[in-house]
Amino acid sequence: MKCTVCRGPAIIDLRRHNANFCGDHFLKFCRDQVAKAISQHDMIAPGQRVLVAVSGGKDSLALWDLLVELGYDVEGMTIGLGIGDYSDASTAASVAFAESRGLPLRRIDLRGDYGYDIPTAAAVTRRVPCSSCGTSKRHLIDSAALDGGFDVVATGHNLDDEAAVLLGNVLHWHTAYLGRQAPVLPGRDGFPRKVKPLVRLSERETAAYCVVRGIDYIVDECPMAEGNRHLRYKEALNSIEAASPGTKHAFYFEFLDKAADRFRPEAAEAQEGLRPCATCGSPTTADVCAFCRLVDRVSDADPVPVELLRAGRGRGGNASNRNKNRTKVNR
Amino acid sequence: MKCTVCRGPAIIDLRRHNANFCGDHFLKFCRDQVAKAISQHDMIAPGQRVLVAVSGGKDSLALWDLLVELGYDVEGMTIGLGIGDYSDASTAASVAFAESRGLPLRRIDLRGDYGYDIPTAAAVTRRVPCSSCGTSKRHLIDSAALDGGFDVVATGHNLDDEAAVLLGNVLHWHTAYLGRQAPVLPGRDGFPRKVKPLVRLSERETAAYCVVRGIDYIVDECPMAEGNRHLRYKEALNSIEAASPGTKHAFYFEFLDKAADRFRPEAAEAQEGLRPCATCGSPTTADVCAFCRLVDRVSDADPVPVELLRAGRGRGGNASNRNKNRTKVNR
Repeated sequence: MKCTVCRGPAIIDLRRHNANFCGDHFLKFCRDQVAKAISQHDMIAPGQRVLVAVSGGKDSLALWDLLVELGYDVEGMTIGLGIGDYSDASTAASVAFAESRGLPLRRIDLRGDYGYDIPTAAAVTRRVPCSSCGTSKRHLIDSAALDGGFDVVATGHNLDDEAAVLLGNVLHWHTAYLGRQAPVLPGRDGFPRKVKPLVRLSERETAAYCVVRGIDYIVDECPMAEGNRHLRYKEALNSIEAASPGTKHAFYFEFLDKAADRFRPEAAEAQEGLRPCATCGSPTTADVCAFCRLVDRVSDADPVPVELLRAGRGRGGNASNRNKNRTKVNR
Repeated sequence: MKCTVCRGPAIIDLRRHNANFCGDHFLKFCRDQVAKAISQHDMIAPGQRVLVAVSGGKDSLALWDLLVELGYDVEGMTIGLGIGDYSDASTAASVAFAESRGLPLRRIDLRGDYGYDIPTAAAVTRRVPCSSCGTSKRHLIDSAALDGGFDVVATGHNLDDEAAVLLGNVLHWHTAYLGRQAPVLPGRDGFPRKVKPLVRLSERETAAYCVVRGIDYIVDECPMAEGNRHLRYKEALNSIEAASPGTKHAFYFEFLDKAADRFRPEAAEAQEGLRPCATCGSPTTADVCAFCRLVDRVSDADPVPVELLRAGRGRGGNASNRNKNRTKVNR
């Protein structure tokens, strides 16, 4: 297998691009794809300050590294979620990466700073862990970006993530979600601008990028996300992609080109009526925002160890969702 | 396992309906679902004459049986496609069903009546067999319906079929196809009205219906369709449905409710400029319709045995499609 560019020994084949690359040209390919995403979607202007949400996984560390390589002014931010060993390893990988490159990293710890962790929040709210986790991360990153005067928040969502979210949205025709699924969410009404510079790279590619760059990322997926829908949608798309390389890319980018605009009205409607949270001032459609309600509800609860909780099992599992899709039958 | 209706022994569990049924109540369930589809989508008015496209498979025989049971005035039509043993068995099952019930069946034989068969057409046109097969079946059934004075053509497309077609259409955002995917295609400009009364039943349910009713259908799928995209989309949806029963139903019916209208303009556009085929008079956007061009091209060709041809392999396989989805890469 030879590199499509230099004919040297290739280390990776990218079937959807009908190309193979050596290490150097693969790194160049990744930089070019990120630069292209940033440029095509007007993600980051020169001189803007970028806050990168960092989990210690392949995507966020590759993103941070790529943005630095491309010359952007970037700071990392990591949140200790309290999901047992997984969160410890996550923080350790983020800190090690930042220190090895001398890059600035902001740290928040849910238990230390807000008196709860994700397993406890899932148990108390009796909802899937991904729900309180998403609420917490979104709020804390948005606030940090606004308070810190950042122009843009960058997240490590890759093509597989975006295609899986899109599949979930079309399987249920969540029209408001479809209307705002985009590689850029403009800043407005107290929300920072958010961008996804990895949308042109697959997760296999971000993993390979880290390996070639010698970035030590945590390989384990979050144990609480096991068996969740997002992973099932990824598997379904992977089986189609394997037979028809390029399907995911077409699915996501053709959506942006040909369909997304048709769902904008509902997305705009869903964002109407935003006002400042009575507690923290963040934009919300309720009196108190979801994050403040979560903190209020869970911060005094007895800690629940992660081992007692897994997505889809026991308290905090998705038993309540299990019948959601069933249709009514007329007998 | 007990019947949800009568508490007698159940023979089938329908997870997406959260129900189990005994034989009698399962048959009633199927009739009710078909009656509901016909009524909700205004498929067939009382007294109208219906032509059912029959392949000898579970769906078309169940459909024929159900429409007769529901009191409609139905005639069957079967087309000998010349796909070796599969087509022989297909015709035999259709004829046996019709004779056993004393129902009228129209028969066309591609080789005898038009001088070609599907394997030969696939080999000569070097396209997937499903392409010439679809063109042939659509044209011949449409013509027979119009010539025979039928009000409606009914086809055996079930929920799995429609959901898989929808998945293919959204994966590639075929906006014109999305705009006309519906359980009813109104008759217009030389096209007969077409309806799909089985859209509320899965293929597992139509198979079970045939078993309970003692209908002897051909179990084999068409050997030329092996490995085609439609089957892959079905598999992907099956894996999601297994974990979240009801997903396929929601995907298809929420699409009809919440999204289909957004794609109508392109569908209407694609049907503009229809005029009568110079050869046969059927509506077409070209001078000569796809069917007449196909017959002209393949009817004098030497027959190609089916064994030499399989979807995706050899001549007539989909090699030409294999690179279609690959995206361009900037190097």
